[in-house]
Amino acid sequence: MTPPTDPIQSAARAGGAPHPDAETLIGLSHRMADAAGTAALRHFRATGLTTEDKGGKDGFDPVTAGDREAEAAMRRLLAEERPGDGILGEEHGQVTSSTGLTWVLDPIDGTRAFIAGLPTWGVLIALDDGKAGRIGIVDQPFTGERFVGQDLTGVPEARLMRAGHETSIQVRSCADLKSAILFTTAPELFDGAERPRFEAVRARTRLTRYGVDCYAYALLAAGQIDLVIESGLESYDIAAPAALIRAAGGIVTDWEGGDPRWGGRVVAAGDPRVHAAAMELLGATG
Amino acid sequence: MTPPTDPIQSAARAGGAPHPDAETLIGLSHRMADAAGTAALRHFRATGLTTEDKGGKDGFDPVTAGDREAEAAMRRLLAEERPGDGILGEEHGQVTSSTGLTWVLDPIDGTRAFIAGLPTWGVLIALDDGKAGRIGIVDQPFTGERFVGQDLTGVPEARLMRAGHETSIQVRSCADLKSAILFTTAPELFDGAERPRFEAVRARTRLTRYGVDCYAYALLAAGQIDLVIESGLESYDIAAPAALIRAAGGIVTDWEGGDPRWGGRVVAAGDPRVHAAAMELLGATG
Repeated sequence: MTPPTDPIQSAARAGGAPHPDAETLIGLSHRMADAAGTAALRHFRATGLTTEDKGGKDGFDPVTAGDREAEAAMRRLLAEERPGDGILGEEHGQVTSSTGLTWVLDPIDGTRAFIAGLPTWGVLIALDDGKAGRIGIVDQPFTGERFVGQDLTGVPEARLMRAGHETSIQVRSCADLKSAILFTTAPELFDGAERPRFEAVRARTRLTRYGVDCYAYALLAAGQIDLVIESGLESYDIAAPAALIRAAGGIVTDWEGGDPRWGGRVVAAGDPRVHAAAMELLGATG
Repeated sequence: MTPPTDPIQSAARAGGAPHPDAETLIGLSHRMADAAGTAALRHFRATGLTTEDKGGKDGFDPVTAGDREAEAAMRRLLAEERPGDGILGEEHGQVTSSTGLTWVLDPIDGTRAFIAGLPTWGVLIALDDGKAGRIGIVDQPFTGERFVGQDLTGVPEARLMRAGHETSIQVRSCADLKSAILFTTAPELFDGAERPRFEAVRARTRLTRYGVDCYAYALLAAGQIDLVIESGLESYDIAAPAALIRAAGGIVTDWEGGDPRWGGRVVAAGDPRVHAAAMELLGATG
């Protein structure tokens, strides 16, 4: 197995010099989350919500007016205030950056949960400077929870905001897999070769839960669970969770220990010991 | 396959004469939910929450101080106000009824979700008169949602209460399995003979989601999803959801079409056509 030696991660964990626009960028990211959440909630549990099928490898990739309007709301703010920044969004394509900064947006991560009325979807907002994610927001507007990580001010930190209260959050320590709580979206997520490797990890954990999309990463950042393993992710699925978890002190890599920002197969852990144990089982040629 | 001809269900769906204590009993059930929710939330996401293992068929059956204190809070109210009513509770055993009424309590359904910080557990409260469930409450105190069904006043009805607002809820119509959204707790729930039957249903649905315990039944009652299939349930897992769903116009039976109140294998649907289609596949000898 390959240990996680990616220089990008080391940079992301190190803090570094404050970005001159740190406060402006963080403030904007909150207003983007507000706008997207308002747009999405207008359609959540609404009678007659129409679901279109974008197709995809498993034959059903739903998108709703909630997804489209939430992303459009964020893009309007960016067009007004940061026209030079790049945008990579799930629903409305790509804008090239002239500032070196790119916003990576998933207006509703967990559209399946969204159309089932389940409040475990989230608005995902990341700001990437080409080296690492510098802001990562997972926002759940129905429960009113906003998980925010930032590494722009020189002092990386993660917070949970809810109902006017704000608390600092961080990952928790966990000595080994047998003490760990593991989340993944669904067992069907893993293909033929991946499934036995995932099962090898699952069989060794204390508890496995399915089905909560980005909310699992938020719980990891908040020190409630220990491990998330997924496959088949896109950049916009993992950019914000990865930046959030790193700011909360956790580790996110692909299954080979590399940079997870391009999506694919991801393993996220709060404790390096749990990450290493999972990597060893996931990396086994199966 | 056996069609659902259980006389208990017909009685439950028919309304019937108002119970003389209907308003008192409904009011008490709300105060029980308030008390249990307050006790449970005190431990939700708390640092240092201790989890004990009660053991069980899958080797891990967690219980926390949240479970015990939430049930004790409900029992205190019953001891003061309804000492003759029976109690069947998950954590503190059974009290025999001298009034013909029995309260069936699961203080935290979804303890696994609870210990993972996930707000899809619920406080379950049912009132059973020996013929059917007459009150069914699924309460999620973190999101502030209370789903309540009653068939005591002569006019069965279901409501969702949240943040001071109250709306009438009912199941939705759904013509066939291929339009249906299915929920279940986990694929591991099903034993060797059950698994292929469950998979036969799953393969025909539009969308399957895992992992939300009683919250799935609440979403079914609220017309957000169409089908829930589970196995290995106890009475206290299904009593409240079944009463809620019936009051919202849905159907709940075991896999053979019989009374689901004793737990075991359960199929719940909003539309009789979806129930019949699922039953046909689940009933096949596998």
